[in-house]
Amino acid sequence: MTEVSTAERELGTAFLPRFDANGLLIAIAVDSESREILMVAYMDAEALQKTRETGLAHFHSRSRGKLWLKGETSGHFLRVEEIRVDCDQDALELLVKPEGPACHTGARSCFYRRLDGDTLRKFIP
Amino acid sequence: MTEVSTAERELGTAFLPRFDANGLLIAIAVDSESREILMVAYMDAEALQKTRETGLAHFHSRSRGKLWLKGETSGHFLRVEEIRVDCDQDALELLVKPEGPACHTGARSCFYRRLDGDTLRKFIP
Repeated sequence: MTEVSTAERELGTAFLPRFDANGLLIAIAVDSESREILMVAYMDAEALQKTRETGLAHFHSRSRGKLWLKGETSGHFLRVEEIRVDCDQDALELLVKPEGPACHTGARSCFYRRLDGDTLRKFIP
Repeated sequence: MTEVSTAERELGTAFLPRFDANGLLIAIAVDSESREILMVAYMDAEALQKTRETGLAHFHSRSRGKLWLKGETSGHFLRVEEIRVDCDQDALELLVKPEGPACHTGARSCFYRRLDGDTLRKFIP
């Protein structure tokens, strides 16, 4: 593996995704219209490749230890319209068009509660 | 440690942050006005506690292995106005008022490049 300089990674035009010790990076899915954060998950190299090939968000399920096409059972796919990369290339922002609620609970976003003192309050039905 | 049921964690009103095997959870800082994602980092229990106590975003630096008050050297603090929690409580969304550029490169957000084919294009100066 070629050594990549910090400057190259942060200021360059080459996509050099930086996977952590477990081979993962963070992927944040954001609704391309409302700009609401829908969900956060991890991608390994395979999930990233499949996402880029198909235009559908794929993640790596840590609990199941395998590739996970978001929507494979629910039909609630996330169509990826744009991929943004952070400074050190260990996190991606996916601008997506969701085909249904992004959360397995049925909420449109996984972030449906906010902290109010020590209590969580639901603000998305 | 008391066992917490999935239903309790996902549907309840109790804040039961779920730290991973390394004692960390994901924290995404979002500009409370523009709703732009500014940065992503990790928090351990200490960083979360300090953030809630002070109203300033604290993270856990994995590279330095210690508590990191965002802005401690730059003065570019993130004032936390709201904390949102995802379904399984292993990720937080911080709505913040940034006191300067969030990225150490000087960009207002760490997500200043997007993928265009295999090339990264800068869209935030």
